[in-house]
This record gives sequence, C-alpha cells and structure tokens, in this order.
Amino acid sequence: ITSKLPKVSTTIFTIMSQLAAEQNALNLSQGFPNFAPDPLLIKLATDAMQADYNQYAPMQGILPLREVIADKIESLHGAQYHPETEITVTAGATQAIYTAISAFIRPNDEVIVIKPAYDCYEPAIEVNGGVPVFVQLQGKDYKMDWSDFRKKINPKTKMVIINTPHNPTGKVFSREDMLTLQEILKNTAVILLSDEVYEHIIFDGERHHSASSFPDLASRSFVCASFGKTFHITGWKMGYCVAPKELMREFQKVHQFNIFCANHPLQQALTSYLKNPEHYLELNAFYQAKRDLFLSGLDGTKFTFTPAQGTYFQLLDYSQIIHEPDHDFAKRLAIDHKIASIPVSGFNLDQTDHHQLRFCFAKKDDTLQKAIDILMEI
Amino acid sequence: ITSKLPKVSTTIFTIMSQLAAEQNALNLSQGFPNFAPDPLLIKLATDAMQADYNQYAPMQGILPLREVIADKIESLHGAQYHPETEITVTAGATQAIYTAISAFIRPNDEVIVIKPAYDCYEPAIEVNGGVPVFVQLQGKDYKMDWSDFRKKINPKTKMVIINTPHNPTGKVFSREDMLTLQEILKNTAVILLSDEVYEHIIFDGERHHSASSFPDLASRSFVCASFGKTFHITGWKMGYCVAPKELMREFQKVHQFNIFCANHPLQQALTSYLKNPEHYLELNAFYQAKRDLFLSGLDGTKFTFTPAQGTYFQLLDYSQIIHEPDHDFAKRLAIDHKIASIPVSGFNLDQTDHHQLRFCFAKKDDTLQKAIDILMEI
Ligand SMILES: CSCCC(=O)C(=O)O
Ligand SMILES: CSCCC(=O)C(=O)O
Repeated sequence: ITSKLPKVSTTIFTIMSQLAAEQNALNLSQGFPNFAPDPLLIKLATDAMQADYNQYAPMQGILPLREVIADKIESLHGAQYHPETEITVTAGATQAIYTAISAFIRPNDEVIVIKPAYDCYEPAIEVNGGVPVFVQLQGKDYKMDWSDFRKKINPKTKMVIINTPHNPTGKVFSREDMLTLQEILKNTAVILLSDEVYEHIIFDGERHHSASSFPDLASRSFVCASFGKTFHITGWKMGYCVAPKELMREFQKVHQFNIFCANHPLQQALTSYLKNPEHYLELNAFYQAKRDLFLSGLDGTKFTFTPAQGTYFQLLDYSQIIHEPDHDFAKRLAIDHKIASIPVSGFNLDQTDHHQLRFCFAKKDDTLQKAIDILMEI
Repeated sequence: ITSKLPKVSTTIFTIMSQLAAEQNALNLSQGFPNFAPDPLLIKLATDAMQADYNQYAPMQGILPLREVIADKIESLHGAQYHPETEITVTAGATQAIYTAISAFIRPNDEVIVIKPAYDCYEPAIEVNGGVPVFVQLQGKDYKMDWSDFRKKINPKTKMVIINTPHNPTGKVFSREDMLTLQEILKNTAVILLSDEVYEHIIFDGERHHSASSFPDLASRSFVCASFGKTFHITGWKMGYCVAPKELMREFQKVHQFNIFCANHPLQQALTSYLKNPEHYLELNAFYQAKRDLFLSGLDGTKFTFTPAQGTYFQLLDYSQIIHEPDHDFAKRLAIDHKIASIPVSGFNLDQTDHHQLRFCFAKKDDTLQKAIDILMEI
C-alpha cells in the first residue's frame, strides 16, 4: 500500500487529548467546551426525533433551516444567499471544507494556505492531488504578509483558504485585510474558501468581517460555519456552507455522494434554535468573560501574551520561562503539571517554534481557575 | 468553472421524491421507511445528550461502539476485527464508501463497478480521477457474469465494488459468487469495497455472505454497514466500516479530515441498542412479511417479478402492460396514478431498459395496501 497521505499521522489534538486522559490532566488542548449546551437545544432535538424526522433530509438540508441561515447572514453581513441554491447544511464545517476542496481541486492545482493553520486543509488538498502553497504569518504577533501572498498567486492558483477568526492565533482579519484580499483576487478566477467557524466569538467590541460581506469576494467564496462551535455541540457534527450558486452547484455534486445529507432531526432542532439571534449574539460576551478571567489570572506569571481577538484559543509565550521546544514543553506540562495544551509549531511553516502553547478557554470557570493555579506555579 | 463531475445532475431519488411530493403520490421511490424507529432508540439518544455526550467523539468512533460492532461481526460471520485499529464509525455508509474510495483511488486507477449500481460509486471514483470499469448483470434476472468480470481485472485495477444484498435488484450474492470472487482476486493487489448496507434484510431462510466471512477476501476488503437501513433511521446518518488495519489506517487518514468523527450522542445510543442482537436479527422476518404482503397483492396484475432475495426493494416488470421507456412510465405512474417508484434503466450500463421499476417496500402495511390497490388498476 502506498499512501495518498504519507505525511499524515495521529493529529496533535488526539495526541494531547489522549495524554490528558492518561495523565488525568486538565484538558485545555482540543477545541471543545467542557460544559453542556443549552437544554432547550436538547429538548428540540428530542422533539424532532419524537415527531419522527428520522429519515433522510433533502440533500442540501431542510429548506426552513436554509432560510434561517439566509436571514442570519443577511442581517449580520447584508449579504444575500438564495436558500434554494446557495446554502448547504453539512455534517460539520470540516465536512464542508473537505467537500469544497474536493469539488474543485485537481492534480497540480495550487491552493494558498496561511500558516499557522488548522490541520485539515493540507490533507484535503493533497488527497485531491493539489499542491498547498504557504504564506507564513510573520513573527510572534502573526502579522499578515500581503506582499508575499500577492507574489504567490499565479495561473496555477485555484483556491485560497483563509480562516478568520484564526485558529490557533486568535487573530481576527481586519476590514483592511479583507479589502486587500479582495483587491488581490480581483480579475483572477481564484476561489476563496473562508473558514469562519469562530465567527461569533470576537472580543473587545471588534467585528467579524465575513468574506460574504465584501461583494467582490463573496462572488468567489465558500463561507463555512459551525453549529458545533457556536452552540457548544462539537459532537453533533453540524455546520453549513454558503456560496454563489455556480460554485454551490459543484459543491453539492460532491456533498451528495460524500454524505448525501446531514442529520435530519438535528436540522429540525437547529432551525428553531437559530431563529432566536440571542443564541449566537450572546456568545461574544460569554467567551470574552472567559478570556478575561483566564488572562487576568496570568498576571504575575512569566507567561506573556497578546490577548486573543477572537476564537476560544489563547496563545501563551513561555520564552521567559525556559528554552525548550514547544512539543517537549507541552508534554512536560501535561505529565508533570497536569495541564494539557497544544504546541503551536506544528501549525507553522517549517515548524517555526516561537515557544508558544495554545490553550482552549471554552471551559467552565472553575476549570479555568484550576488552570490558572497550575500556570502560576510554573 | 469546469466541473470535476460534469455528468452528475439531480439524482433520480430526489427527482422522484420531489415528484411524489408535488403530486401527492404514494412515495415508494427513495429507499427509506415511512414508519418510526424503536422509541427506545430515541430515548437512548436523548439520554446521551442529557448525559452530555455532546462534544467530539474520538476520530474513529467511541471504543464501546467499536467493541459491540466487533462482537456482532464475530458472532455473525466468525470474523475478527480489532476494535482499536480496524473499525471506524462513520456518518452513514455513503460517507464510508466515499472515504474508502478517496483514500485509495488516484488518477487513472480502474475500479470495477457492477451494474446496475446505486449511484454513489461512480462520482466518488471520478472525483478522485479514477476510471469506473463496468460489468453488467445479465438479462432481466441480473445474473453475474464472472467471466466478463475476470477479463476486466488488469494491472490498473485498484478496487472492485460489490453490493450484496443488491440495490436495486434485490439479488443476494451466493456463497459460490463470493468464492469465485475470492478466487479471481487471489494473487492480485486489488482492494474490495463491499457495500453490505442491507445485510440484515434477507428472505426465505437465505443467508447473507459477507466479504468479512471469507478470509482471503476479508484481508483486502472494506465492509460498509448502515445503522440507518438496519434501525429505520436513515436521517441519523450513522454507519460504520471495517477493514484490516493496513487498509483502515489509510481510510482513517481521510476520514479524519473529511468529517473528523461521527455524531457522538448517537454513537452512545447505538452502543446500548446494538448490544441486543434481536434488534437486528428480527429484521429479516419483519421485512419478509412486508415483501410477501406486497407481492401477494400483485397476483392477478400484469406486473411480473422475481421476488427480491434481500434489501427492501422489489423490481416489477411492466413489459406485459406497455412498451414505454421506464422513465416515462415511472413519471406517468406518479402523475396519473399517484404512485412513485424508481425507473431502473438509470442504474444500468448503457441505460439498458428492461421495462422495470423499483418499489421500496419499507413502508407501513396500509401504505403497501394502498400501493397494491393502485397497481391493481394498471
Ligand atoms: C477536531 S479536533 C480539533 C478541534 C479544534 O478545532 C482545535 O482544537 O483546533
Ligand atoms: C440517499 S437517497 C437513496 C436511498 C437509497 O438507498 C435508495 O433509494 O436506493
């Protein structure tokens, strides 16, 4: 057997979560909440199963859910997506991303990926024979290098992937970033895949600038979203994807044969739940309180940081504590100090090691307090 | 945009289900039950959500479910699969099939597909650049032509796909068929993808011969199964796939980035539910009664048929009624007679039209009675 993905092995998320379990360590590694979702959502899911929405949904998702999604995007971003042809409900954002890439990438097509990057983009590109081309965010503050990005666009470039708010750095792409991106892609046939799964987790009064809100970008973009991240149900594996209909038609051709449709009773539940905008608008304040709790507790430690602008991840820099590769330090923290995090170098181009670890603060306040107590001792 | 799947358009399942809805016709087209699953299963799913199994499951599925699956396969087929490395829980069998194909098929690899075939194999092959090579089941009785099959194996053949019990014909591959297949594949590196989603729906005391029960086949096989088909929950999108660990390792590399994991609370529910073998062993008798009810009602009509040996589909031959292409006749039945079925020619090589329609009898007895009343009038 010669592997189509020779470089892929067990992901760092699985490794660190397993290590956390073995070591009985506090798990701030993998990105998921350790608290329960709204009981209303569980009630709605139960109701849907009892009302016997238990057989296939339509391939693209049930129309009422697609309509609520369209309403939400219009009210937040002023963008119009036609529920009939431009929206697909997926089994999580990962499935949307994999499907969009599979629908367009052919052997030797280039796809620009901004590093550090969440680990699902490159294998999806490579399994389809495409070639990832990297742009590295610069320095410990991960500044976007648009001039490098511009240079890497060429006739072989088929797609560009961005992720805002950005995992693992917590960076939010500014309006200027998005306008620059729009300008660079103008007059090209490049498709944009915009991974916006943390769209509702933005801090300090800042705004999320969705690719959908820039008409010239939107016309070439897939925008992927996650109910799992937004409603504390990462294990329900529900998300969605929007794009102009010419692009969405190709996406649905693959979606149809990849999974056919997403879970039906959960679509029913999410339709009702999504109708109340509070259910996602309250998320910024909810997670800002957690970020602030976590960071205020780190005053007086030797960890340094730039506060995350979005996502539920915070990078902590330990270079004032020790000079040790981040993988080693992360393992040592899990084993000796019983706290698990994610070393960031694996997300970076050439494994650049800034001596930073990523902590997930989607955790109960008392978990965060315990984490602080541990980090204070280091 | 040049499509990677130029031939794909709306599937016949969607077309006929939509036509059924528009025409308010009895829908015996798409393969799903019109009755509720066991309330116990819904209770177990609710319990799991309330017990807060709402975040990511492990990538390959929760271990207890993989263990029950291993036990089930061992008790039914005497085959041993290691739960740690040889079983993956998927978001339905379709996702398992797409993932297995994506993990192995590269441009110009040949994949043998037996026609008539369910529609998800060819696009999955083609999106990965592979070339489907067809073997047509012969005549109105769909006899397997092993000599043609044997001729089509060549050094480019990477994979063979079989489906038993077979959709749409209701044919079950015999022990001799499986032994012949095993003999033909011996000394080749060909991978077998065995779609066994109707494994628990076999009639007249016959047996399902799983690829897993033939050691020389099992060593090269992915066997795909469906909780949706077995437990009347096609909309829950849950299934699984087993294979020897060298093959499963490559499968999981793609699975991980396609969907990461299947729905977690439903995995918990299915673990308890699957522990009681009655929940799947009773299926043969349950569906045999429905097949028999349906077929006995057709005595005295001009439809002719060979009773399905398995699956919940029955082909009816209308050539004694009219000479009309099956797509036209199916549409006319839906519009004029208010009963929707699936024309079979679209599943066949070169659209061979035997004047047959496929009816799904996974329906309430009174739905089947209404169907009989309509068909009696034709
Ligand atoms: C699917 S495991 C990773 C979850 C996540 O989004 C992260 O930790 O970055
Ligand atoms: C996913 S739609 C088709 C369902 C099915 O298995 C069939 O009708 O053959």
